[in-house]
Amino acid sequence: MADLRSDTVTRPTAGMREAMAKAAVGDDVFGDDPTVNELEAYVAGLFGHEAALFAPSGTMANQIAMQLVVPAGGELLAGGDAHVVTYELGAGAWYGGIQTRTWGSDGADLDAERIAGMIRPAGYPSVPTSAIAVEQTHNLGGGGVVPLATLKDLRAVTQAQGVALHCDGARIWHAHVADGVTLAEYGALFDTLSVCLSKGLGAPVGSLVVGSRERIARARVIRKRMGGGMRQAGILAAAGRYALDHHVRRLTEDHERARIIAEALAGFGVVDPERVRTNLVPLDLSKHDLDAPTLTARAAERGVLISAMLPRTARLVTHLDLDDEAMDQAIEVLSELLA
Amino acid sequence: MADLRSDTVTRPTAGMREAMAKAAVGDDVFGDDPTVNELEAYVAGLFGHEAALFAPSGTMANQIAMQLVVPAGGELLAGGDAHVVTYELGAGAWYGGIQTRTWGSDGADLDAERIAGMIRPAGYPSVPTSAIAVEQTHNLGGGGVVPLATLKDLRAVTQAQGVALHCDGARIWHAHVADGVTLAEYGALFDTLSVCLSKGLGAPVGSLVVGSRERIARARVIRKRMGGGMRQAGILAAAGRYALDHHVRRLTEDHERARIIAEALAGFGVVDPERVRTNLVPLDLSKHDLDAPTLTARAAERGVLISAMLPRTARLVTHLDLDDEAMDQAIEVLSELLA
Amino acid sequence: MADLRSDTVTRPTAGMREAMAKAAVGDDVFGDDPTVNELEAYVAGLFGHEAALFAPSGTMANQIAMQLVVPAGGELLAGGDAHVVTYELGAGAWYGGIQTRTWGSDGADLDAERIAGMIRPAGYPSVPTSAIAVEQTHNLGGGGVVPLATLKDLRAVTQAQGVALHCDGARIWHAHVADGVTLAEYGALFDTLSVCLSKGLGAPVGSLVVGSRERIARARVIRKRMGGGMRQAGILAAAGRYALDHHVRRLTEDHERARIIAEALAGFGVVDPERVRTNLVPLDLSKHDLDAPTLTARAAERGVLISAMLPRTARLVTHLDLDDEAMDQAIEVLSELLA
Amino acid sequence: MADLRSDTVTRPTAGMREAMAKAAVGDDVFGDDPTVNELEAYVAGLFGHEAALFAPSGTMANQIAMQLVVPAGGELLAGGDAHVVTYELGAGAWYGGIQTRTWGSDGADLDAERIAGMIRPAGYPSVPTSAIAVEQTHNLGGGGVVPLATLKDLRAVTQAQGVALHCDGARIWHAHVADGVTLAEYGALFDTLSVCLSKGLGAPVGSLVVGSRERIARARVIRKRMGGGMRQAGILAAAGRYALDHHVRRLTEDHERARIIAEALAGFGVVDPERVRTNLVPLDLSKHDLDAPTLTARAAERGVLISAMLPRTARLVTHLDLDDEAMDQAIEVLSELLA
Ligand SMILES: [Ca+2]
Ligand SMILES: [Ca+2]
Ligand SMILES: [Ca+2]
Ligand SMILES: [Ca+2]
Ligand SMILES: [Ca+2]
Ligand SMILES: [Ca+2]
Repeated sequence: MADLRSDTVTRPTAGMREAMAKAAVGDDVFGDDPTVNELEAYVAGLFGHEAALFAPSGTMANQIAMQLVVPAGGELLAGGDAHVVTYELGAGAWYGGIQTRTWGSDGADLDAERIAGMIRPAGYPSVPTSAIAVEQTHNLGGGGVVPLATLKDLRAVTQAQGVALHCDGARIWHAHVADGVTLAEYGALFDTLSVCLSKGLGAPVGSLVVGSRERIARARVIRKRMGGGMRQAGILAAAGRYALDHHVRRLTEDHERARIIAEALAGFGVVDPERVRTNLVPLDLSKHDLDAPTLTARAAERGVLISAMLPRTARLVTHLDLDDEAMDQAIEVLSELLA
Repeated sequence: MADLRSDTVTRPTAGMREAMAKAAVGDDVFGDDPTVNELEAYVAGLFGHEAALFAPSGTMANQIAMQLVVPAGGELLAGGDAHVVTYELGAGAWYGGIQTRTWGSDGADLDAERIAGMIRPAGYPSVPTSAIAVEQTHNLGGGGVVPLATLKDLRAVTQAQGVALHCDGARIWHAHVADGVTLAEYGALFDTLSVCLSKGLGAPVGSLVVGSRERIARARVIRKRMGGGMRQAGILAAAGRYALDHHVRRLTEDHERARIIAEALAGFGVVDPERVRTNLVPLDLSKHDLDAPTLTARAAERGVLISAMLPRTARLVTHLDLDDEAMDQAIEVLSELLA
Repeated sequence: MADLRSDTVTRPTAGMREAMAKAAVGDDVFGDDPTVNELEAYVAGLFGHEAALFAPSGTMANQIAMQLVVPAGGELLAGGDAHVVTYELGAGAWYGGIQTRTWGSDGADLDAERIAGMIRPAGYPSVPTSAIAVEQTHNLGGGGVVPLATLKDLRAVTQAQGVALHCDGARIWHAHVADGVTLAEYGALFDTLSVCLSKGLGAPVGSLVVGSRERIARARVIRKRMGGGMRQAGILAAAGRYALDHHVRRLTEDHERARIIAEALAGFGVVDPERVRTNLVPLDLSKHDLDAPTLTARAAERGVLISAMLPRTARLVTHLDLDDEAMDQAIEVLSELLA
Repeated sequence: MADLRSDTVTRPTAGMREAMAKAAVGDDVFGDDPTVNELEAYVAGLFGHEAALFAPSGTMANQIAMQLVVPAGGELLAGGDAHVVTYELGAGAWYGGIQTRTWGSDGADLDAERIAGMIRPAGYPSVPTSAIAVEQTHNLGGGGVVPLATLKDLRAVTQAQGVALHCDGARIWHAHVADGVTLAEYGALFDTLSVCLSKGLGAPVGSLVVGSRERIARARVIRKRMGGGMRQAGILAAAGRYALDHHVRRLTEDHERARIIAEALAGFGVVDPERVRTNLVPLDLSKHDLDAPTLTARAAERGVLISAMLPRTARLVTHLDLDDEAMDQAIEVLSELLA
């Protein structure tokens, strides 16, 4: 079987299991888990921020950050295809009271000037814009990487207008590897970031919110209210730290494999290999006779698992647990189905 | 003084005051106000719907309708410049738990096909689209009128996909008069409408939600929870009915006056008279050296009141209470300031 | 017909209608309605507070006040039979994010010491108590009046602990008349009050939130978000002012009539006349063979309208529009049904 | 050091670590984690229910269950000292839109008849009661056990009235051991339960919601929205299963130790040993000259950690990681401080 549904399917390696088995732990709700505390400090440091907070999922990390930077009744600008708008079940609106106003589904192809033009300042009868969220790399945008220059432009305009900038950095590690931008360079551009250990990095569970000491203190309260306070979370944090120490540089392999798949399938008109920069391979089926659920179901029958993200968008993801055989099988099966 | 801030500034006429003074009333929270009941039935009938509900404001009417057609955690598609996104203080998100995904700020220039392409069906991990809201006429869109053909296209695609269609029809009367489309024709295209009596029609207070009997029964509960249950509201309903009986056809006068103003100011590059179709005159100051608050403040010093809607958008509104002298004053003062 | 369902059923008098017909008005959303502004200042003054805000209903006035004094995620202490807990459809929780912790259903028989003991200070893992709400007079408590001494005790403990005190004063006028306590004396005890013009005072529509200038400025924003911003609300405010000028002292008549009814029905074991202090006559049917809906339905068949508040609690209310004949009819019909 | 703050401080044993290290895992968001699936089925079976769902915390498990049984705008009855009212940061109100009406702080001494009398049925203008929550054992009630007979009485009245019954069973294992009631007997009495693996049972992380297949399917969506969807959660589930297999019967030791502490401290008038039935020892400092934070701080200086739950309530908890030395130290230090 070849499981390319997501990089979240990876299972912990032997080394990671060992790290978990011997992790020093304590009650993290009381702030007593040394492995969690160390991971939080380490990740904050990677991004040049003061503090970080461990959370059970990327959705919770994003939602906490959004509640930190947008008051209930306030407005967040984001892409219409952002994870926070598409895949978090309306939590921003329901739990955060946060209104989203969205630009188009441009993936990583952000237009900083256009976004800047969308900002509504306070002092008018309109809802003022409190924050902007970008996604790095961009999930529905096929793993695209927002160029550093674009982010710097966005930072300049948001800072000038007093608007917070949040990065949904679930796969920021992939951008770091793909573009050679340091995590600290990215960190310097955002007020808050969420980063995920359980996607490409291969840890079983865990994301972090990164920000200022004051914000992370508030984040701790929000996390508890959302039900994200875990006890001996050091077990998970140990895996996360192991992943950071061992699984970042190797993401280039996933990127290469994604490119190989894209090239193999390019002839069917569903993907442009030039745009596959990280570990996601989006299949645009808008002009194909198979829709995403049908392709997904047929591939599954033949042992190749992929994801139907939207009616006409399927997605393949390369990751740590994929071997050559799975690669071959995926390419073979999909080529036959798309032909 | 010339008050062109909004058509909401109109004061009840003598005839309207008389209608209020002699209105038969009862306790509308108990369903006992004959004038309210009659108005609700009358307005429902105008739009060919089963029922309607009186509400204290356009914002509440919109919010009730949104809660009717979108569950908490669900998604509403709307223009980024829609009233429900811009001027209702995030109530949809905060009180309704409703996520908004927005198309551009196109005003009344809707692209039905593009909007249809934004719909996300249920059955995927993404937030499914529950409803679409359009605005007729479009406030930030300078009083533009969405063409009937566009609305019919939208209706076709939403019906095919099981997505509800809501009309923020605060100024739908103006569209009716401008385009000669009957209210029943409009009504047939929407699942819910909000309509306002206290804008161009000149009533002091009141909007209605229009829809099916089942939806309006639920609307009554939502209205109570939002604090919109009023007692002898027949006083207000009488004014509303008077407005419907006497102030619809005369909107053409407001439209003509808006056009006159637009033509007078066209030379300053801030408004295209061809696009002024109803009673709103938007001033696009994006290329002018005065921004909206400055222009508004200077005009006010000289007795001409206009609205700063956004930093570079000002708005003039013609209405029932504007006389020739005010028209002259507004044109003179604004011409001098914009020159 | 004798309508004793509520004092909300009263219809405006000729004098009140005249006041409405000639009211000076403006757009209150812009702060331009002179009659509203005057009423707000007048009511604030009555209670010795800085400011007040007109709202379309008592529910909205209470909800605004609750949002002013309790942050989302915070706690309000109230009686289990308080209007804000019983008859506002969970708006405090849903729209305000406000947790309610309740003492028993003691009506006006508050135990200040016990309530003080319920306060949870900040600085513990528990939800801190932000505010306490009392109701004067107490609706489900049969129109009972909280003694001034009790309120002073509550004020002392809440002030000492930094907890806000809100008064749901929908019928505070009745307490004022019944106990001879001035409105200013009451006002001095509370951080916020809601007061209602459309119950015993006989105005068609309207309540006010009373508080500090800073709080009322925030209240204006909340009112808009809840959909309570009305335009020429001076029409309603004029009726409210007329009611304040003409209908306060006469409440003693309603109180006497309520006592007369209670004495007439005392023999059936459903009401203690000694406890009927204002214009509400609660019927406790917990030991009667008729439940509240049955009694209500049978009385209605014979032209006497009363309210089933809860399964075993019915309520009669005396008011401005009740004449001797209605009194006779009510007593006669209810005596026969309860016999 | 003697850490008696909570049974949540326990660290995984060697056997439990081994179970985690070799756990079979998969992506639980896709439903693919065999260890999670097995644990969910096993726990559902223990309580005689159809299904269960793993969650990262007891707070999330409770909040999910509350959202399952109470619609936004609906009402939950609970004790004023319930965990869901006291220690979940208002999440029920804020995220669930759930109004709480509370009976007194009676801990486990429930009065089923009084609670039944609080139920408000639908069909009245009042907020209908949707569900009742009880807590077994009762945290702020000092680990008290609600008698089975009381629960059966509650079940009878709630079923008769169509009101759901939820059990916050974070420490239901302790009740099971203390009273010899089977988990299935408990399970039969409730519509939903939350149970916790990371308190007395000693697992590092994890709680479950237990209920019908239909409810747990909805729970899965709510969990995702709250950010509780974890990936290879089997690591944690393996620890939970190990805890269930090895750490239930031994809770009697914790109970005995709690009793020993209570007897040692009884002379200071702060605890009645007869009421210490499980592993919690509440210290009632309402008549002592030390308040809870002071006692807690002074004990901590001498290496004994306890919890200040409320200003005058401290709590000691016995658990798996407590040895004889820690017991001696705790008794000695607290005896000296309370003397
Ligand atoms: Ca993984
Ligand atoms: Ca091979
Ligand atoms: Ca008007
Ligand atoms: Ca009235
Ligand atoms: Ca008579
Ligand atoms: Ca533990």
